[in-house]
Amino acid sequence: MALKGNMLIGQSGGPTVVINQSLVGAILEAKKHKQIKNIYGALHGMSGILAEDFIDLRKEKTSDLEAIALTPASALGSARKKPTPDECTKVFEILRKHDIRYFFYIGGNDSAESANIINETAKKVGYELHCFHIPKTIDNDLRENDHTPGFASAAKFVACASMGDNLDSRALPGVKVNVIMGRHAGFLTAASALARVYPDDGPHLIYLPERAFSMDKFVADVERIYKKLGRCIIAVSEGIADESGVAIATKFSKEVDSHGNVQLSGTGALGDSLAQEIKARTKITRVRADTFGYLQRSFPGVYSENDMKEARTVGKLAVQFAVKKYNDGSVAIRRKAGKKYDVFFERIELKLVAKETRHVPDNFINKEGNDVTKAFIEYAKPIVGPLPVIGRFKGVKVKAKKK
Amino acid sequence: MALKGNMLIGQSGGPTVVINQSLVGAILEAKKHKQIKNIYGALHGMSGILAEDFIDLRKEKTSDLEAIALTPASALGSARKKPTPDECTKVFEILRKHDIRYFFYIGGNDSAESANIINETAKKVGYELHCFHIPKTIDNDLRENDHTPGFASAAKFVACASMGDNLDSRALPGVKVNVIMGRHAGFLTAASALARVYPDDGPHLIYLPERAFSMDKFVADVERIYKKLGRCIIAVSEGIADESGVAIATKFSKEVDSHGNVQLSGTGALGDSLAQEIKARTKITRVRADTFGYLQRSFPGVYSENDMKEARTVGKLAVQFAVKKYNDGSVAIRRKAGKKYDVFFERIELKLVAKETRHVPDNFINKEGNDVTKAFIEYAKPIVGPLPVIGRFKGVKVKAKKK
Repeated sequence: MALKGNMLIGQSGGPTVVINQSLVGAILEAKKHKQIKNIYGALHGMSGILAEDFIDLRKEKTSDLEAIALTPASALGSARKKPTPDECTKVFEILRKHDIRYFFYIGGNDSAESANIINETAKKVGYELHCFHIPKTIDNDLRENDHTPGFASAAKFVACASMGDNLDSRALPGVKVNVIMGRHAGFLTAASALARVYPDDGPHLIYLPERAFSMDKFVADVERIYKKLGRCIIAVSEGIADESGVAIATKFSKEVDSHGNVQLSGTGALGDSLAQEIKARTKITRVRADTFGYLQRSFPGVYSENDMKEARTVGKLAVQFAVKKYNDGSVAIRRKAGKKYDVFFERIELKLVAKETRHVPDNFINKEGNDVTKAFIEYAKPIVGPLPVIGRFKGVKVKAKKK
Repeated sequence: MALKGNMLIGQSGGPTVVINQSLVGAILEAKKHKQIKNIYGALHGMSGILAEDFIDLRKEKTSDLEAIALTPASALGSARKKPTPDECTKVFEILRKHDIRYFFYIGGNDSAESANIINETAKKVGYELHCFHIPKTIDNDLRENDHTPGFASAAKFVACASMGDNLDSRALPGVKVNVIMGRHAGFLTAASALARVYPDDGPHLIYLPERAFSMDKFVADVERIYKKLGRCIIAVSEGIADESGVAIATKFSKEVDSHGNVQLSGTGALGDSLAQEIKARTKITRVRADTFGYLQRSFPGVYSENDMKEARTVGKLAVQFAVKKYNDGSVAIRRKAGKKYDVFFERIELKLVAKETRHVPDNFINKEGNDVTKAFIEYAKPIVGPLPVIGRFKGVKVKAKKK
């Protein structure tokens, strides 16, 4: 039987709509195991650990926990902080002082890296720590996973927003640029393709960071579609970059976080500049841009049922794995073969999800680099689940009258 | 009994999530009356009428109509076009040719004005036309109405988006500017206040076009809140203007439509410039801006139940009024006195809703001009209806350990 001790859990990186499902899944599972004594939550991830800023999660009522599970964005607060070697030493003092033997960190690849650093340090000093990463990211860019908790709900938001925008643009035609989150991985932007119901539905063009972005080709693509349909909706990843790998948005923003990432979200600059280019280089007059922004990862009430369930499961399983079987690791979501959508979960090595990310595979991107393929739709559709029904008039024309 | 003849219906102005309820309400009601022979829909409002571009709405299946009723954005297409005197003459030739005796135009004050122009011309030439305006606008700025169809659903979207954004900002604190639709009337921006559940919830500052916007006061307000809470969420109308009435956004956009309106939506410029001002004038580093954009009026699946019902009713009643009792008018929503939310509907004169708009009344805005009052919340809450439940940890702190 594993060591008795206290548990500490934290949330890290960009919030999602289902990240609290993982948190609540872990808490409720932890309560079932005698090895786990106190259950603490670190406020604001690594920052809260370093500041010894913990709350007692055994003091929370189950009904409140269930409400929190349905509430978007990290209920414990988040942080974008990677511990330095000095800070790692400090983290240890704190874990030791509180007899933390079970440590869970919910987040993306940066968070897995932080967990991995702490885990390796624990091994080095011979401190028995059961250390698990719990996957979360709307970017869907964790390696080893078929998809990651948080992605499906954000994808549903993007698909619904794109559906609505397509309808709006049918009503009042023009060119519309929609900027979607995704720094290096275009999965979320690709999900805009799920909005298509009728053959002329947008988005008509989709640009991912996995393909070099050429402004000339972009403007030519837009003109071609506009000529054909009288309107054009474009979905573009915030992270699109030119042939040298320079993000188009970096021309307009210089802010950098502690992971070295430039600010791409929370500004409309990329969308506006793309719209300006279209206006300047074509004769199209009605050109608009929206940046879907933080709504993509935080909008309450718009979520994928699968995502909610899977997020809960990875939290629960991380605790089970840590208590019953493994000293460390992450929980990966794998898809079962077969036509009906189903998944299974596996414990994997921490280092396999840390740091590096995965990208949209080649077979999900069309040859021209301005759309996704049917293979992507088949991949993403069952993950996201049902979308709103979109009605349309058959539209039998009335003959014009001479007199 | 009123004259037998054909019916024409069109949609105009910015789409909403429930505008098709009014359309379907009118179509299904029209089918019940023998006076109405053919039921035509004009594609893209006034433009479709002038182009004689009609579809036969009797050819649509009821099940399709019901799907369309739940689908956002003008299913017939929209337009932002006021007929010129010459065009009015042309409209008449077309109405006469098709023996249109029942004309319905779904839209805001500009659309009511177009309907009024056509109606007055009909009277002048002695052509019997039953002409009704059916109210619609997310701006909630139609006179004579307690509120307008489309507002409650857009308000729900804004409230939900603000709830999510508040949670996101609690997780990763900073300053956040959210730009919300509303050119001259701040009702929709004010609706962001419905997002507040806990005492420290945002938005912490709300700026409406009804009050002169001062950049100095704005920055000082933001600094004060940030100092107190460590974060600050601001809701700001796209139409905020300085003391001379010059829209702050006009510095960044010059595009004008045929009603003389400057482009405020479909660009992130206003939010970005406000964020820049905060960054430049304070020491706050994490400052972000989102422009909720077209999603506010087109997002499928996020709607107010009341709004859906009321939008259906105004469409239905316009037809009843036109067939049974009146030659012209608009349908107004009035609120019944009493604690429980309830409404009734009245036929009013067309000119009463045309052209001029109403604004957020003084008692809905706080003295400092940076928030709404309790009176606004009491007004808006029942219109919008239930919002998502937001859970939060009680958060009992764990004592720091000495060793």
